[in-house]
Amino acid sequence: MPETLIKVDLTKSAYENDMIHNRWHPDIPMVAWVNPGDDFIVETYDWTGGFIKNNDSADDVRDIDLSIVHFLSGPIGVKGAEPGDLLVVDLLDVGPKKESLWGFNGFFSKKNGGGFLTEHFPLAQKSIWDIKGLYTSSRHVPGVNFAGLVHPGLIGCLPDPKLLAKWNERETALIATNPTRVPPLANPPFAATTHAGQAKGDAKAKIAAEGARTVPPREHGGNCDIKDLSRGSKIYFPVYVPGGGLSMGDLHFSQGDGEITFCGAIEMAGWLHLKVEIIKDGVAKYGIKNPIFKPSPITPNYKDYLIFEGISVDEKGEQHYLDVHIAYRQACLNAIEYLKKFGYSGAQAYTILGVAPVQGHISGVVDIPNACATLYLPTEIFDFDIMPSSAGPIKHIKGGVDVSLSPDK
Amino acid sequence: MPETLIKVDLTKSAYENDMIHNRWHPDIPMVAWVNPGDDFIVETYDWTGGFIKNNDSADDVRDIDLSIVHFLSGPIGVKGAEPGDLLVVDLLDVGPKKESLWGFNGFFSKKNGGGFLTEHFPLAQKSIWDIKGLYTSSRHVPGVNFAGLVHPGLIGCLPDPKLLAKWNERETALIATNPTRVPPLANPPFAATTHAGQAKGDAKAKIAAEGARTVPPREHGGNCDIKDLSRGSKIYFPVYVPGGGLSMGDLHFSQGDGEITFCGAIEMAGWLHLKVEIIKDGVAKYGIKNPIFKPSPITPNYKDYLIFEGISVDEKGEQHYLDVHIAYRQACLNAIEYLKKFGYSGAQAYTILGVAPVQGHISGVVDIPNACATLYLPTEIFDFDIMPSSAGPIKHIKGGVDVSLSPDK
Amino acid sequence: MPETLIKVDLTKSAYENDMIHNRWHPDIPMVAWVNPGDDFIVETYDWTGGFIKNNDSADDVRDIDLSIVHFLSGPIGVKGAEPGDLLVVDLLDVGPKKESLWGFNGFFSKKNGGGFLTEHFPLAQKSIWDIKGLYTSSRHVPGVNFAGLVHPGLIGCLPDPKLLAKWNERETALIATNPTRVPPLANPPFAATTHAGQAKGDAKAKIAAEGARTVPPREHGGNCDIKDLSRGSKIYFPVYVPGGGLSMGDLHFSQGDGEITFCGAIEMAGWLHLKVEIIKDGVAKYGIKNPIFKPSPITPNYKDYLIFEGISVDEKGEQHYLDVHIAYRQACLNAIEYLKKFGYSGAQAYTILGVAPVQGHISGVVDIPNACATLYLPTEIFDFDIMPSSAGPIKHIKGGVDVSLSPDK
Amino acid sequence: MPETLIKVDLTKSAYENDMIHNRWHPDIPMVAWVNPGDDFIVETYDWTGGFIKNNDSADDVRDIDLSIVHFLSGPIGVKGAEPGDLLVVDLLDVGPKKESLWGFNGFFSKKNGGGFLTEHFPLAQKSIWDIKGLYTSSRHVPGVNFAGLVHPGLIGCLPDPKLLAKWNERETALIATNPTRVPPLANPPFAATTHAGQAKGDAKAKIAAEGARTVPPREHGGNCDIKDLSRGSKIYFPVYVPGGGLSMGDLHFSQGDGEITFCGAIEMAGWLHLKVEIIKDGVAKYGIKNPIFKPSPITPNYKDYLIFEGISVDEKGEQHYLDVHIAYRQACLNAIEYLKKFGYSGAQAYTILGVAPVQGHISGVVDIPNACATLYLPTEIFDFDIMPSSAGPIKHIKGGVDVSLSPDK
Repeated sequence: MPETLIKVDLTKSAYENDMIHNRWHPDIPMVAWVNPGDDFIVETYDWTGGFIKNNDSADDVRDIDLSIVHFLSGPIGVKGAEPGDLLVVDLLDVGPKKESLWGFNGFFSKKNGGGFLTEHFPLAQKSIWDIKGLYTSSRHVPGVNFAGLVHPGLIGCLPDPKLLAKWNERETALIATNPTRVPPLANPPFAATTHAGQAKGDAKAKIAAEGARTVPPREHGGNCDIKDLSRGSKIYFPVYVPGGGLSMGDLHFSQGDGEITFCGAIEMAGWLHLKVEIIKDGVAKYGIKNPIFKPSPITPNYKDYLIFEGISVDEKGEQHYLDVHIAYRQACLNAIEYLKKFGYSGAQAYTILGVAPVQGHISGVVDIPNACATLYLPTEIFDFDIMPSSAGPIKHIKGGVDVSLSPDK
Repeated sequence: MPETLIKVDLTKSAYENDMIHNRWHPDIPMVAWVNPGDDFIVETYDWTGGFIKNNDSADDVRDIDLSIVHFLSGPIGVKGAEPGDLLVVDLLDVGPKKESLWGFNGFFSKKNGGGFLTEHFPLAQKSIWDIKGLYTSSRHVPGVNFAGLVHPGLIGCLPDPKLLAKWNERETALIATNPTRVPPLANPPFAATTHAGQAKGDAKAKIAAEGARTVPPREHGGNCDIKDLSRGSKIYFPVYVPGGGLSMGDLHFSQGDGEITFCGAIEMAGWLHLKVEIIKDGVAKYGIKNPIFKPSPITPNYKDYLIFEGISVDEKGEQHYLDVHIAYRQACLNAIEYLKKFGYSGAQAYTILGVAPVQGHISGVVDIPNACATLYLPTEIFDFDIMPSSAGPIKHIKGGVDVSLSPDK
Repeated sequence: MPETLIKVDLTKSAYENDMIHNRWHPDIPMVAWVNPGDDFIVETYDWTGGFIKNNDSADDVRDIDLSIVHFLSGPIGVKGAEPGDLLVVDLLDVGPKKESLWGFNGFFSKKNGGGFLTEHFPLAQKSIWDIKGLYTSSRHVPGVNFAGLVHPGLIGCLPDPKLLAKWNERETALIATNPTRVPPLANPPFAATTHAGQAKGDAKAKIAAEGARTVPPREHGGNCDIKDLSRGSKIYFPVYVPGGGLSMGDLHFSQGDGEITFCGAIEMAGWLHLKVEIIKDGVAKYGIKNPIFKPSPITPNYKDYLIFEGISVDEKGEQHYLDVHIAYRQACLNAIEYLKKFGYSGAQAYTILGVAPVQGHISGVVDIPNACATLYLPTEIFDFDIMPSSAGPIKHIKGGVDVSLSPDK
Repeated sequence: MPETLIKVDLTKSAYENDMIHNRWHPDIPMVAWVNPGDDFIVETYDWTGGFIKNNDSADDVRDIDLSIVHFLSGPIGVKGAEPGDLLVVDLLDVGPKKESLWGFNGFFSKKNGGGFLTEHFPLAQKSIWDIKGLYTSSRHVPGVNFAGLVHPGLIGCLPDPKLLAKWNERETALIATNPTRVPPLANPPFAATTHAGQAKGDAKAKIAAEGARTVPPREHGGNCDIKDLSRGSKIYFPVYVPGGGLSMGDLHFSQGDGEITFCGAIEMAGWLHLKVEIIKDGVAKYGIKNPIFKPSPITPNYKDYLIFEGISVDEKGEQHYLDVHIAYRQACLNAIEYLKKFGYSGAQAYTILGVAPVQGHISGVVDIPNACATLYLPTEIFDFDIMPSSAGPIKHIKGGVDVSLSPDK
């Protein structure tokens, strides 16, 4: 049995576990060292460190202090890894913690984080998803049951000081363009809730002051939320500091492309079985800027889709120039409207798009002025037939249950 | 053998064929009527009506007057189709014209249309792709050979006057924000090169004056350039005028998500075998705004991918807010840089991304401030192994041939 | 456009076309020569040379003289191919003749050929399948519509005299064990109906006297009836005579594993687009006895199956030792019994197993005394849900039509 | 966390665990009862109960007393299940025991069980396969690494007395045709090594005297060794006794169609997570004789195959009549010969065919006198390219290691 390098106790605060951290900084001490060729287990908290509970209230989603996320396990040093190398990581397997076979999905209040459709769903909402072997279903969203495309939402190596400075600089500049926006344009370093792992004293203070927040994906990968980076895939990460410093967390049992609900996928605590290797000087050899990866040969085979199109004309009819973000939002809204005809509430439909193995494609980005985005909804996840027919849609979902909602305070 | 409703003679100008048109307008006369349940053949020109030639010069790509595109076959009326219905179209098959078993791909000059990476590839370039049965390869881009995901880039029903007015209004408003931009933000109606099909006299003049250009995708579908809307798929189009008025063209032998090179996919003349049905009042029944579709059970099974990530930090390092367009551009640039390590020129690599069955996914759109887009490059289309290894990349492509280039005049 | 090397006129007898032959013999003259690297078109008759008609009577299936089959197009010589080489054949595309967009399936009478389930379906029966683009359906078998896995049932190179002698010797020996059996154990050479292509005089007489019948698959490939050897696949054939002598025919629009109805798949006239190359001395290099092949990247993606098991206990309950033939027959009978619950006649169900992209797997061949075979029935080909449920099966098929039947005379 | 109904301690003999049994008999007492809708965990021994060890000697494979197999976990009663019902079993997940992340494959000596190619590999041989997450590889068979298609080789419900009698009767009759054959034609009840679960006294004696051996698949399913009955699949079992009595074991991490090496797949100890439901009177409603099943949406996506053909002419050149068993043996031998060209020993090649996700198809069973069987070898499991090329095969496997061999004593 492979060694478990990092253990997490879900009954204790993530802040008490010194193999966890929630900022990116080169000075976070390695919590373990491995050799190239080693395989080992890493356990993780859910991204909120257990703040969100398995119940029928969205109060926790509404009230969470987002400056605490994401609680990451690591960093792990790989002997011999040097800046400019590629760290090759095999995700040999990923799964939920046995004592916690459930996950959550939610929408943040527009006042506390928001989400892709926050103008349409401005309040905190939450659904709970039970995990039964390879499958998941929810008491809050009837009529769907699907196999998970389990993956870490967040994984990457520590930045070096130069890269960290670049991140902070460019994000600060963006915030400066509209510093009072709600939700904000980006999140600057924030000391109060920093978890600096095993760093102490001055080192800890420095990390708290400078540490990049873990929310956005960046050059090193990080919070990419790529559903296809799933169990069985192989990833090539740029190395910036000696040893690499691989950290990970934010495990998802399943997620649609875009993680549109932001809070987020089916979020869970879990474990990863990893193997690491090094390609010396791989960054220059292959011209790598961001991580690249090879998807798994084992993934859910859903392939019968109903596909929704969206173009870059917004909800008010205003024309935007090749804006894929708006086009994908329209495709999502079109899919939600469609699913409502079968009896789903808007929030339930939105949830399905956030958690099911939905594909979001950039279909056209040159046909001025409209971008075209497409949302691929797998039809096989539904208990009933969702294809159009002459008979019209049947209201299979009878109401009575819905995604929990907590009004703003 | 099903009837060929519309024939095209590639040796003659598309302007001489009155079953062709190149604008969207409700007054374009139906060129044929069919019954629900009928299946029939429609032939099409390539989108430029034969302007681009099978040779080794990009002069035609540089010099083309883009106000002539797209030459569409239709409109075809379906008896009994009324506004508010859904027109169900089975693409029973799609293929190239037997006498024209080749296609072209190109980049427009930045001065004449541009493209997704026009800042990086500002000059007119062209490659020719030979079609051999299910496969294609190019004398200008060695080392790749793949099965086509054949599809119409453009298909849809005629707009009604109200929808047409809305299009013209919102696009005019956008142009007004920067009317001298090169390339332009959008294309307004343009009379001189209008092909109004069988309309004559005043009707023709009205179409020329008001007819929407065919470049962007819109509510009715149109130029969606969705590669998965391929042979064997089933599409549900909103009907706006009595009879529907289905038109189509811009056939592609193969295309990557985004059609990033703009000129465009592997563009070809061809034919479609279609079947039509009607779902009465389907627009309201299913809450449809844009077309929806079910992909084909027959598509190339490429599934072994190398995946490139991009985030919404641009080439200069500037931070953008959840901008998927920029993120996908970075993923494309990352893939191009990678392929160059195997000996490809930048233009060849860009071409491959434009024409091969590349997937472009919207992977993350909520992790402020970075969107994350991913480009899925099928590894099986290459004659050699493109995966990273400790040995580093091998220069399989030896140079000597390249995509043709024509400097601006 | 590639050259059509062999043309067939469906209005004329195959015996009048000297580029056709219906026996295997080294002395059949090459009808055309090509170079390695060439691609070209070959047209073919259906395997019976047009004997079976598109009508609602099975008389032709009952009355056919099976000594005439199969009518093959060829042989084609490849310059430079020598005994011991591998002839690499790319099936660039395969399709039906435009003027003949239909195919037939039937069961032979037990008195004239029989079939896999001839004890259960002892009389001649026939169904007609219409080809519409990529899809097929039948007026005799309602409720199914599927994309074809188009392929040549029969393709291979000419044997040399030694190989031919071996075939005749071993098959004659088998026949001798039960020479009066109906249907026979094998078919010996038969002069009267021989079509020797362009051979004349003594050469023709020799071919008629010695030529191996085309029914069984043999070392050279031949009548393998492998559904996955479809459009887009690549085959490596052993070469026995100078030039190889590639012949082909027996095109199928679709077929299930086993071609259990014998008459046979969805049989059609059509064409193949081929490319040929040579691997010198490939037979010894790779230790090849029978052809090997690589399947197509383009095939119907049906993957949702209902799977039936069968074991080697026969219909009377008798135990057989690891007999896969009997096990597969039980799996087929189990599937037929199941489909009858939805309203199909036994003959319709049998037909579906013969023509749809059904998989037949050898699941267990070591667990004495029972072999286990499995039949994979794709659920997506049906217009209705065929999965079991608590509600029990619904009789979607209302009767009224059936596969045509002609009693023995 | 679902309840673990049956636990196994791999350090203790399976005979000491009264929730295990190794014969089929209606009188074996249920070890647990569940309700329809319940999900639960069942642990299992490997099929030999731990007799085969993780070492480099095949002595254990040579010396095993095969009358002890298979050690099954169960029977489990489902409340409300009655004869004639269908028991619907969801295999929510299946995996190896954490403390035992390895499996074995072997060939039995011809004197003790034999196997599909026992004439070619008559001696006991063994290879060990390490399980790393979703993947497996072997120190005895270099150059291959693949994702497991994890499944129970054996699962089914208890027979009723009538069915049991039928089994014993027909198998005894078969044995009587050649009672001294080595290996035997079938295995009769054998008291000495019977494990009758919780039965005691007379009941135990009766089970020992009459209990059917677990080796062959039968009407109830049982030892079907179907690789596609894998994690995530759904099975419909006939119920013969009140409560059903579901038992299972013989877990495989991976197996090729046919389980040709007999000892067997990659055999392991493990666990299953199951859910059960009942379809009342389903046997008659759906005309079920053997179990039917729906495969998993999650399976390894290997789809690039090299396919080998075999026909029913045996190794000596003798012609057999439509014998799929012989045809598949030839396809296997052809594949072995091919793989030897890349440096594998025959035993290594045979092992690969036994353990990798190889497909065995019944391609033609009507073209007298030759059956055609095909073996689909996934090319992606190899570290190197196994496709043919003009350059000829490269000896990637350098020798030095081989599958362990123990001569007969």
